[in-house]
Amino acid sequence: MNKIFALSAFLFGVSSCYAQVKQPMNAQQSDSVVVASIYKSALTSTAGYENLRELTSKAPHRLAGSAGCALGIKILYSQLLALHPDTVYLQPVVAHPWERGEKEVVRIELPSGEKISLRSTALGGSEGSGPKGLTAEVVEVKSFDELKALGVAMVKGKIVFYNFAMDPALFNPGEGYGKAVYQRTAGASEAAKYGAVAVLVRSLTNRIDTFPHTGIMRYVDTIPKIPALAVCTFDAEQLSAMLKSNDKLTVYMRNTSKMLPDVASYNVIAEINGSEKPNEIITIGGHLDSWDLGEGANDDGIGCMHAMEVIRLFKQKGIHPKRTIRVVLFLDEEMHQVGAKAYAASVKEKGEKIYVAIESDSGADVPKGFGMSANPEQVAAFKQLMGIFQPYDLYQFRNGGGGVDVGFLKPLGVPTMNILPSPHRYFNYHHSAFDTFKQIDLRAIQLGFAAHASLVYLIDKYDTMGR
Amino acid sequence: MNKIFALSAFLFGVSSCYAQVKQPMNAQQSDSVVVASIYKSALTSTAGYENLRELTSKAPHRLAGSAGCALGIKILYSQLLALHPDTVYLQPVVAHPWERGEKEVVRIELPSGEKISLRSTALGGSEGSGPKGLTAEVVEVKSFDELKALGVAMVKGKIVFYNFAMDPALFNPGEGYGKAVYQRTAGASEAAKYGAVAVLVRSLTNRIDTFPHTGIMRYVDTIPKIPALAVCTFDAEQLSAMLKSNDKLTVYMRNTSKMLPDVASYNVIAEINGSEKPNEIITIGGHLDSWDLGEGANDDGIGCMHAMEVIRLFKQKGIHPKRTIRVVLFLDEEMHQVGAKAYAASVKEKGEKIYVAIESDSGADVPKGFGMSANPEQVAAFKQLMGIFQPYDLYQFRNGGGGVDVGFLKPLGVPTMNILPSPHRYFNYHHSAFDTFKQIDLRAIQLGFAAHASLVYLIDKYDTMGR
Repeated sequence: MNKIFALSAFLFGVSSCYAQVKQPMNAQQSDSVVVASIYKSALTSTAGYENLRELTSKAPHRLAGSAGCALGIKILYSQLLALHPDTVYLQPVVAHPWERGEKEVVRIELPSGEKISLRSTALGGSEGSGPKGLTAEVVEVKSFDELKALGVAMVKGKIVFYNFAMDPALFNPGEGYGKAVYQRTAGASEAAKYGAVAVLVRSLTNRIDTFPHTGIMRYVDTIPKIPALAVCTFDAEQLSAMLKSNDKLTVYMRNTSKMLPDVASYNVIAEINGSEKPNEIITIGGHLDSWDLGEGANDDGIGCMHAMEVIRLFKQKGIHPKRTIRVVLFLDEEMHQVGAKAYAASVKEKGEKIYVAIESDSGADVPKGFGMSANPEQVAAFKQLMGIFQPYDLYQFRNGGGGVDVGFLKPLGVPTMNILPSPHRYFNYHHSAFDTFKQIDLRAIQLGFAAHASLVYLIDKYDTMGR
Repeated sequence: MNKIFALSAFLFGVSSCYAQVKQPMNAQQSDSVVVASIYKSALTSTAGYENLRELTSKAPHRLAGSAGCALGIKILYSQLLALHPDTVYLQPVVAHPWERGEKEVVRIELPSGEKISLRSTALGGSEGSGPKGLTAEVVEVKSFDELKALGVAMVKGKIVFYNFAMDPALFNPGEGYGKAVYQRTAGASEAAKYGAVAVLVRSLTNRIDTFPHTGIMRYVDTIPKIPALAVCTFDAEQLSAMLKSNDKLTVYMRNTSKMLPDVASYNVIAEINGSEKPNEIITIGGHLDSWDLGEGANDDGIGCMHAMEVIRLFKQKGIHPKRTIRVVLFLDEEMHQVGAKAYAASVKEKGEKIYVAIESDSGADVPKGFGMSANPEQVAAFKQLMGIFQPYDLYQFRNGGGGVDVGFLKPLGVPTMNILPSPHRYFNYHHSAFDTFKQIDLRAIQLGFAAHASLVYLIDKYDTMGR
């Protein structure tokens, strides 16, 4: 908190004649006025909401390397141009596209001839079952230990059904997700070790719903690659119940998913030049790709909008940051993070100074605090500013923050941050057909826009990350 | 914080052998364990959710004195019995029922013969227009000052259209509501002073939606009683736009609303007897009546459930409070507060000591803090406990708390409290057909149940309101 400027410069949009003021308290009072003004603008504008509507309605399916993703890139590029930053450009990256293929079929086939469909979706990266599909008995497990205990004798030739639910008792659903996600990411190869022919994985959400939730899975190269599909929680409960009375239950499943040849794609980047320290860069971003089931509104169209609205609000309020603000809309967070890796490589190669990297990839709900991965001095400096956010119900501070994409900047010594939205509805939508624009609450995202713009404004003004 | 008990008693459900402990810090650590246990139970139960589903599906329209309300009372009484408190009883009150009558008609009638319907709803308490309806020119105002400036010359014989919107720039939507609600409550008589024949009022919500939002209005007895209807915000915007190009716009409107004869009705009350101080009573409640457009899930079925779940969670966890817990489900918060008045009168007449009165009437969203109307010592004592709530994102403290119903206990010196849910979605649903069970988020209400039970547990244990 070394350099403190008067309010008037921000109110009148002048960046070159700040008067230096010695009273932090007055400055904080002034900051309250600026932040209030940012909130007022955000709460009375539908610009970000309408941009999100356009992105999600015109390019709802944005799997990295797909035609939908290419369209999304075009839309976001145009939307950024319309905000009139100093620069908008594309950063080339190579995408490794995967396609779901035909609608998946998963059904219980009873000896009576009755067939019971299970609502399912291939996991990202899954191989196909072959055009004829496969039929096998199902064996349910709730952990890799249970799988190991069954061993080859009980698993070979079967479909392994992972049914370990997210624990709703954990206050932060993200914690429950973290403890259950291994089934999805690593379950296929682990089951294939014992000769399984495919895996079905309980969807990762606390809700009992009828949407299968997809997400990335990874194969171990030395183990046969078997199909991996998620089943919605409602049907997972039914399947589990039926297995209790019939452990010879047979399931037919078919998916035609596959990897496609690499294609050229892009990160989309826009900048406002810094007025005093243009070579220090505040990176703020979300990811432009999405899964192909819903519209990628919550994950992560909103993250793109959170970042883009910082530009819009700064321009509207006449805020001229000391440092360069670089909005980065990353390609391919969901699968291989090729966009984030390319961006970090470019930063390293050019020797750029990223002052702080802020990511939004935690959904569209009402913001309630901050996460931060930084050194103790930086944390302490930021905490001094938190009182300014209290009128806006931003109270929480969590050690550890950022996100998957800006995480690639950490080895370069970049402090990373994110704003924490209320986490409780996030996995209702996550990676499913329920993640649509219709589920977005206008006011919640307006509050997110205001919080992000206020955060960038204060961090830049107060040199929170050091001079 | 005079009396501090060991954890074990709560964990094992024993109420008569508490060991007194002298270390507040250890006690608070133990409290964290108890509160964590309450949260765990609440987050893994759908009991309150299913009770709310039953109430809102079987008795969606619960206007005080209506058949729907009588059915709601029966359902809640049964649900309370099933929780096995020590007592469940009905407290007789006299309701003054109002009925909406036939579906309202409001339409613009153009000289061309074209008719444009406006989605409308009679305000609670409104008189009818007469069976034939009425036709008149419309004059738009945004304040009583504007109305006064127009005067009799411009208002007589016309329909006054109040179109002052809630200010979305105000962080708490409740504040915007507070500044705009006078049009609805007092607009009819104010317009009738100048000879208006009816009023149309812009619905009170920040959203531009197609749901008309109703709510109470009141007449001044000495002024002619003219019909008062709300118009949805979308149609209010259209009407306003059309008036700009045609100030002779004519509207036909018809409603058959009326007051009905008084009927007998009830507050529904249940108690858990206090183990040490049974004559000190912690009142916790919501209101059982609702408007007749949606299902009264958010307003205020959830308030009833918040209170009832305290009983369920205390019984489940074996928590035996020192004081009597009295759940009061109030009749008629929405119109005349006859339930709250009867309850306060009974408390006064019997000389009961209400230790604290907690009300939930702010919706079903994720809780984020506490409101409290109490003396400084009580506030200070409560604030000492707030750290226990921080792991559950309950940070906010607001001076001033309670609600309309428990407000009638304030003249008796009763401190009042409420838990503050996130306020941002509240007016999306408020008093409209959008207030349905489908809009309820399971996890958000589970968090509310846990917060209410934890609050009552701690206030009782620590004698927060004085001994």
